[in-house]
Amino acid sequence: MAPMNDLRSARIRLYVEQPLGEGQTVPLTGDQAHYLFAVMRLVPGDPVLVFDGKSGEWLADVVEAKKRAGVLVCRENTRPLQLPPDLWLCFAPIKKTRTDFIVEKAAELGAARICPVQTEFTNSERIRRDRLQAHAVEAAEQCGGTYVPEVADLQKLSDLLDAWPEGRHLMFCDEALVGAGQALGEAPKGPWAILIGPEGGFSETERARLRALPFAHPVSLGPRVLRADTAAVAALTVWQQALGDWG
Amino acid sequence: MAPMNDLRSARIRLYVEQPLGEGQTVPLTGDQAHYLFAVMRLVPGDPVLVFDGKSGEWLADVVEAKKRAGVLVCRENTRPLQLPPDLWLCFAPIKKTRTDFIVEKAAELGAARICPVQTEFTNSERIRRDRLQAHAVEAAEQCGGTYVPEVADLQKLSDLLDAWPEGRHLMFCDEALVGAGQALGEAPKGPWAILIGPEGGFSETERARLRALPFAHPVSLGPRVLRADTAAVAALTVWQQALGDWG
Repeated sequence: MAPMNDLRSARIRLYVEQPLGEGQTVPLTGDQAHYLFAVMRLVPGDPVLVFDGKSGEWLADVVEAKKRAGVLVCRENTRPLQLPPDLWLCFAPIKKTRTDFIVEKAAELGAARICPVQTEFTNSERIRRDRLQAHAVEAAEQCGGTYVPEVADLQKLSDLLDAWPEGRHLMFCDEALVGAGQALGEAPKGPWAILIGPEGGFSETERARLRALPFAHPVSLGPRVLRADTAAVAALTVWQQALGDWG
Repeated sequence: MAPMNDLRSARIRLYVEQPLGEGQTVPLTGDQAHYLFAVMRLVPGDPVLVFDGKSGEWLADVVEAKKRAGVLVCRENTRPLQLPPDLWLCFAPIKKTRTDFIVEKAAELGAARICPVQTEFTNSERIRRDRLQAHAVEAAEQCGGTYVPEVADLQKLSDLLDAWPEGRHLMFCDEALVGAGQALGEAPKGPWAILIGPEGGFSETERARLRALPFAHPVSLGPRVLRADTAAVAALTVWQQALGDWG
């Protein structure tokens, strides 16, 4: 059992790609070493919390601290892995700050996968997938998560729907539903995805296709029109309460 | 009845302080005139939507357009006033961007009043109330609202609780409740407030006082620790679904 003061001082949390285990050596990337030793001023012997997205959270000790390199050694497991429910968040990328925000909130609120989609009225033709993935990592580090949702490549909404996995339900939030739509209370459990429309709304073609899908559940997010980033957080909350792990 | 193309082209919405009515003349502030005529390039005859927070939304026409001044005239009422439920959002101000964000989201999600509170672990000693109020106005303009929540002055949590209005319930979201807390399903209707803790959590003294309040309802926002801004949006969503106007 780690002494309590180690656990308390180890407020720094790092996501690492390498699989962790007791006594496991963890080489740091240049950026991680810079953060720990130049920014946070850690020295050999200092504790750090690490997680790999697969084996929960570990207390590790700094054993080597150089300018752009370093090594940790895992001491013991401090928390089990907590996987989010099997929920995808699909959304049309908007302005940079608000897209970053959606990714951060999806990681905090417990989405398993984040899927940027291009709709007919999406302005953004491309995204920086690596940058969005880094945001998801940072959010998981900050919020005490032990899992990092994967950010998928940008794909067309029509392609996503063409290849829709069997058995996955779709919660479809459309500003045209303001004040209408179904409640999720009676909806089936299982794998789900949330789809948030772009700032300009869905096109008529998209809306007709979405409404006709047998696995789609239109849901209203109240009587006011929400921005896409607000809608993403509200939809994640509604879903987690009704069908997720907030019960 | 306004021609449909006027209603469609009048995508610009402005909050004005003066009471509105049919045929009412609306003098613009310098900033409003700059926005309408320099930024959005409106000219006399162009339509604008305006609301005063009291009489719903009006279609107005530009009748005078100068560099830093101008006049609109209200043509007709286009939407009734939609008041939010009697809900306060109380939160401890955090970093600038995230505080701005909380105010924006509170306006969008339908809070009637926004109360920044200073807790023992709040870093921020002061806020720019006028700047936060401007954010609430902008959010209402953007999201099609007809009401702007008032941003109150920063006050100490203890003072807020000392002067707590009789009959107002308090939904109290505390990270120490992660995974616990009550559901709101059976909670009474009526005036409410949501209280979001600061990034560092409440102090033990504050927590003990909050838990002992007869009007306080501790509520959990799921098994993950949320940032204060995420918690604000999630709490507003939970409240609106259970007790507000999302029904």
